[in-house]
Amino acid sequence: MTESAKTRPVSRRRLLTGGALAAGGALAGGAAATAARSDNPGARPADVPAAQVATAVEPFHGPRQAGVATDPQAHAAFVAFTLKPDIDRAALGRMLRLLSDDAARLTQGHPALADTEPELGLLPARLTVTFGFGPGLYTAARLDDRRPPFVADLPAFRIDRLQPSWSGGDLLLQICADDPLTVAHAQRVLIKDSRPFATVRWVQQGFRRAAGAEPGRTQRNLLGQLDGTANPAAGTPLDTAVWVPGGPDWLRESTTLVVRRISMNLETWDLLGRTDRELAVGRRLDTGAPLTGTAEHDEPDFTAIGADGLTVIPDFSHLARARVTGDRQKILRRPYNYDGIPTSEGHADSGLIFASFQADVTRQFLPIQRRLAEQDLLNEWTTPIGSAVFAIPPGCPDGGWIGQQVVG
Amino acid sequence: MTESAKTRPVSRRRLLTGGALAAGGALAGGAAATAARSDNPGARPADVPAAQVATAVEPFHGPRQAGVATDPQAHAAFVAFTLKPDIDRAALGRMLRLLSDDAARLTQGHPALADTEPELGLLPARLTVTFGFGPGLYTAARLDDRRPPFVADLPAFRIDRLQPSWSGGDLLLQICADDPLTVAHAQRVLIKDSRPFATVRWVQQGFRRAAGAEPGRTQRNLLGQLDGTANPAAGTPLDTAVWVPGGPDWLRESTTLVVRRISMNLETWDLLGRTDRELAVGRRLDTGAPLTGTAEHDEPDFTAIGADGLTVIPDFSHLARARVTGDRQKILRRPYNYDGIPTSEGHADSGLIFASFQADVTRQFLPIQRRLAEQDLLNEWTTPIGSAVFAIPPGCPDGGWIGQQVVG
Repeated sequence: MTESAKTRPVSRRRLLTGGALAAGGALAGGAAATAARSDNPGARPADVPAAQVATAVEPFHGPRQAGVATDPQAHAAFVAFTLKPDIDRAALGRMLRLLSDDAARLTQGHPALADTEPELGLLPARLTVTFGFGPGLYTAARLDDRRPPFVADLPAFRIDRLQPSWSGGDLLLQICADDPLTVAHAQRVLIKDSRPFATVRWVQQGFRRAAGAEPGRTQRNLLGQLDGTANPAAGTPLDTAVWVPGGPDWLRESTTLVVRRISMNLETWDLLGRTDRELAVGRRLDTGAPLTGTAEHDEPDFTAIGADGLTVIPDFSHLARARVTGDRQKILRRPYNYDGIPTSEGHADSGLIFASFQADVTRQFLPIQRRLAEQDLLNEWTTPIGSAVFAIPPGCPDGGWIGQQVVG
Repeated sequence: MTESAKTRPVSRRRLLTGGALAAGGALAGGAAATAARSDNPGARPADVPAAQVATAVEPFHGPRQAGVATDPQAHAAFVAFTLKPDIDRAALGRMLRLLSDDAARLTQGHPALADTEPELGLLPARLTVTFGFGPGLYTAARLDDRRPPFVADLPAFRIDRLQPSWSGGDLLLQICADDPLTVAHAQRVLIKDSRPFATVRWVQQGFRRAAGAEPGRTQRNLLGQLDGTANPAAGTPLDTAVWVPGGPDWLRESTTLVVRRISMNLETWDLLGRTDRELAVGRRLDTGAPLTGTAEHDEPDFTAIGADGLTVIPDFSHLARARVTGDRQKILRRPYNYDGIPTSEGHADSGLIFASFQADVTRQFLPIQRRLAEQDLLNEWTTPIGSAVFAIPPGCPDGGWIGQQVVG
């Protein structure tokens, strides 16, 4: 409607030369993640009765934390805390024991010990609570030698417009479940029990398709793109990409999480024609197939030349820039959409809570992110406004607690 | 944990004499809705495969609008608009034709005509879009004689702490679906197509249990209560309560919607013991049974006296105050939970988007609300912070548009 007058098509040539970036300097933001292509490895079957959605349980105890390789649940709350100044290693241990106990109970469909709304704790809906340790946690515990060096602020990227209110954090709880009330209740319980030890730094709430809505399908983000085609496959590829295979017991079976809040400028994205969108992404919007293929998981051919004499997949397309091969280079993307309150003019507050797990941020995440920050056509319509990195410590056995290998 | 020191139990005697209200004056707010007891009439069977959640369709065309008697979907966005100053009856007709066309397509799993992300429009997930007309719409169209007199600001209640940013509105779209991405997409499309005509006044996003999670069960709100036991049963009781049976064609098969945003003070609610909570509500928290019964739908006995010589169900309990019998007095409650970002101290921004449908606000809603505002123990822990009333005009046939009987 109203857009038509303002439409400013991005020409093929401008896309290919990166001119669109220069033209839209004020908007240039961008995100590794926005069109992140990687399917989740273990989709559930289509014929799960809906009622089982509520009662399904993910294990809490084990050598690795849940909520990483777990088939992404429909709803998530990422809760980042700032530890209070007087929190030392001993206090941290008490906090983690308490929160682990809460998580162990809630994820299995039992109320927490101090649960004031126990009836809200009875439907786990595949609830997982994943603990992440930010740089400040190691400092508080005087255990900086146990901090992986890349668990720190990411280097600054020119596309970043980071806001402190969406960035950093000493402790992260990633709370995921297929039911939004289950997430809300777990968030409430865990925040309440954290209050003697920490303040809430930020909370990001997000969603994907409803449980079972598109089993085995890659999800779509709010730009309309299939989001997650190139994830490592379940089994050895995922294990190689995600989990630290050895080292001291506070590192073995650990991983790291990068959380970045990526604002989408849907107003300018809407001005773009479908062909230009597909050139920016390097893939078809409907099937997710690379522009040189016909199916989502076809191998892209970056050398193919079109009738116009140009590469079919633009060199600056998100696909070309984000592409890595080799499981040791891949990251496991596990993003959620967010959709806040629009402005009075009807401009959306939409975007992506980009979340990626990788064994080594320096080896895996940073090279991809650097290439995307340098040149990625999608940067024109996306802006990173939050960023944080957390170590995801190993899991714990029944009777143990998350973090025991690190601060125990 | 930290609460224990602050716990201030509410004694049975104080509850019964209303003393708790006086003691907590600063908090006194309250809500008809918070413990609104009324089950939805038509629950879906438990064995619906989860994949059908995404493809299930609700009809758009018909004599009555969808999204009223429809079994409540898991997610909702209530979008209220302010018409631009130059919008007259003809412009309003164009707007409603356009939005009706969008809604007719999206609810059936087809993209809108100007859909820029058509792939997001393919999974309806029982999407309904329900149109509501506020007082300003009739004024803009110079059709005040067609406005039901109670479609106006509610009278002020002493418990109200209304914020303009959550109140009023000329046009409402109630967007409900079992998939959050479907709601987000429909919201985006409908807001974009409204922009030539209106600005966004407020948006309230809410949730219930995931689709099929508790089929046939009354939902729980974030106070942990079963929320919706006393709704009129499907069929004649619901029809009697909700739909206007006759009159001119702009009233026949219409209804009205009251939307109130009810903030819950979970901090003080958490200080209350379970017994005191149940006395405040007049029902058991686990089963929802009245304190004189054993099952949710048992008839309460307001004359029963306990061992302490007091009525078992306190006179000021929510149950006693909200109670109406007779389908012409009942309202159809169709509320959603909301859960915003907590404060840094970890205090929740939680509550209820109370939504009730009734044929006549004056006959049905107001007497209940007046009794609750006057005395309801729950007022101590709940505060109405937003309020709006909308006429829900009749439905339209295929090829028609919502509002044609009113402004056509």
